[in-house]
Amino acid sequence: MIIDCHGHYTTAPNALEEWRNYQIEGIRDPSKKPKLSDLKISDDELRESIEANQLRLMRERGSDLTIFSPRASFMAHHIGDFAISSEWAAICNELCYRVSKLFPDHFIGAAMLPQSPGVDPKTCIPELEKCVKEYGFVGINLNPDPSGGHWTSPPLTDRSWYPIYEKMVEYDIPAMIHVSTSCNACFHTTGAHYINADTTAVMQLIEGDLFKDFPTLRFVIPHGGGAAPYHWGRYRGLAQVLKKPLLLEHLLKNVFFDTCVYHQPGIDLLTRVIPVDNILFASEMIGAVRGIDPETGFNYDDTKRYIEATQNLSSEDRSKVCEGNARRVYPRLDAALKAKGR
Amino acid sequence: MIIDCHGHYTTAPNALEEWRNYQIEGIRDPSKKPKLSDLKISDDELRESIEANQLRLMRERGSDLTIFSPRASFMAHHIGDFAISSEWAAICNELCYRVSKLFPDHFIGAAMLPQSPGVDPKTCIPELEKCVKEYGFVGINLNPDPSGGHWTSPPLTDRSWYPIYEKMVEYDIPAMIHVSTSCNACFHTTGAHYINADTTAVMQLIEGDLFKDFPTLRFVIPHGGGAAPYHWGRYRGLAQVLKKPLLLEHLLKNVFFDTCVYHQPGIDLLTRVIPVDNILFASEMIGAVRGIDPETGFNYDDTKRYIEATQNLSSEDRSKVCEGNARRVYPRLDAALKAKGR
Repeated sequence: MIIDCHGHYTTAPNALEEWRNYQIEGIRDPSKKPKLSDLKISDDELRESIEANQLRLMRERGSDLTIFSPRASFMAHHIGDFAISSEWAAICNELCYRVSKLFPDHFIGAAMLPQSPGVDPKTCIPELEKCVKEYGFVGINLNPDPSGGHWTSPPLTDRSWYPIYEKMVEYDIPAMIHVSTSCNACFHTTGAHYINADTTAVMQLIEGDLFKDFPTLRFVIPHGGGAAPYHWGRYRGLAQVLKKPLLLEHLLKNVFFDTCVYHQPGIDLLTRVIPVDNILFASEMIGAVRGIDPETGFNYDDTKRYIEATQNLSSEDRSKVCEGNARRVYPRLDAALKAKGR
Repeated sequence: MIIDCHGHYTTAPNALEEWRNYQIEGIRDPSKKPKLSDLKISDDELRESIEANQLRLMRERGSDLTIFSPRASFMAHHIGDFAISSEWAAICNELCYRVSKLFPDHFIGAAMLPQSPGVDPKTCIPELEKCVKEYGFVGINLNPDPSGGHWTSPPLTDRSWYPIYEKMVEYDIPAMIHVSTSCNACFHTTGAHYINADTTAVMQLIEGDLFKDFPTLRFVIPHGGGAAPYHWGRYRGLAQVLKKPLLLEHLLKNVFFDTCVYHQPGIDLLTRVIPVDNILFASEMIGAVRGIDPETGFNYDDTKRYIEATQNLSSEDRSKVCEGNARRVYPRLDAALKAKGR
């Protein structure tokens, strides 16, 4: 089985975006504020948006199951306050849940959280609990910068994040560390902010000792770990300067990288540098980079091709990257699959 | 000849840091403000600080000439105002100039600029002119984020930067895009802020069309280009989404990457992905990562070893990376060398 640990609902029916726009207008002008019941998306519309897009490509490319979360760039935690984020997260998570019910063999949910800049992260716990207990979600997306490119929250090692981590440990779910839209003109959302956030998170975790407090906590760093694998010597060296244990001990018991790296040399580096047990197959399809690479004739984000082509993985390794590691890092996914005899 | 295009004066005598500390105290308490003449560093002290450190390592490792600029993390443009930055830049540049006079065969200067958050970049021009005309400097370091991790300046493609670019074109000097200390707790200076800035700069240049306005402008992106080469497929794909020309056309006539990537797989990726004409040898020695890699027994930042070991470069390629490209990208360096028959 091939599990893609990183898919977002980027193709939701337009009604979702329209509702969101009214919600945002409602911040300034409360008369515009939409009701929850104003959002009407039928099962048929959901089905169509998935069948014509993600599911079609999964079939074409040969992946089986996607861990599916709300569109990352639309989380936009910087907009409004906790109430706004809370309503928005509930809507987006519910849509992913409905997709997972409509296509139970192909999608399983991961939650966005109702984060808001300057608001205590523990306010996210009720939504997290609902998504795990009622929706059967198997992970969360945690935004290390809810300000959207101004980086006003403390590092991930700060104790203010601990209530989230305690809940993650209790439910045995990992978090993918994933920012949202940048509202800082310096940072292109998918070309700079996403990648910078991955790099930043890795370095925050190297600087701190978070996994001493939470030995079973697990993070997935998307987009191939940002710059970290490419600069792995720098990170090993900085850990040494900071008098930390080797990264194998200090980081890699708890931190995993996905394979959203959109060319062969990148995947070759990732699979050469990072131990195979720490790499999880992912494509972030349909996401940031939708085109066809003129150098290969295939989609940039058809990452399965790079995994298949790399010389660095044995067939046993490939099976870990494509299935085994995801089952280990997302135990609730493994349990859900086993319950169905998969 | 082996030219290292990226060295900072990280080993300046302590008197420099002491003077800076008084200068910073003087911002709050003007009675503490030091005079320029309070800073006394003899030629012997300069000589010793270089001979025992950078020059010793250059001899050991076999590099000949370093393009030498003030310590990047000490630029700290976020401290004080333009007057503070101006005085500090003048002092730091003069020390590099003195080093270049004491060791003319081994060091040639690149200038830090007296940038200050919110201050018009054109205020930097007198210092830039002095460094080129009086000190014979061959390049500058341009900080895309003088706020030190808050990213309050506009992108590098903004017209407010143009006066600097006009002067660079006039003098035919390149800029290395190099941030300074992070004063944002989210960003470790050398582990996150430096690498993020490199990635951010590349994406800003992809988003914009700066080189249409300045066809001969040249930037060196340090630290192996941040995350860009590792994610080169992403960047090629995003350029395509943005309807830009191929990166070879859109970026690589004007943008160059140094080799400050501290392990073999990183250099192998860089030299596989980026055309050889766009790669400049550098070590940033003595810099962020000073230890010995237990996996190799050699210093992490002994990047010459990786360049020698990579299978991706012919001996002609190596000569471009180590010398030819630097002479092309820094024409004033080439002229200075030729004037000495080198």
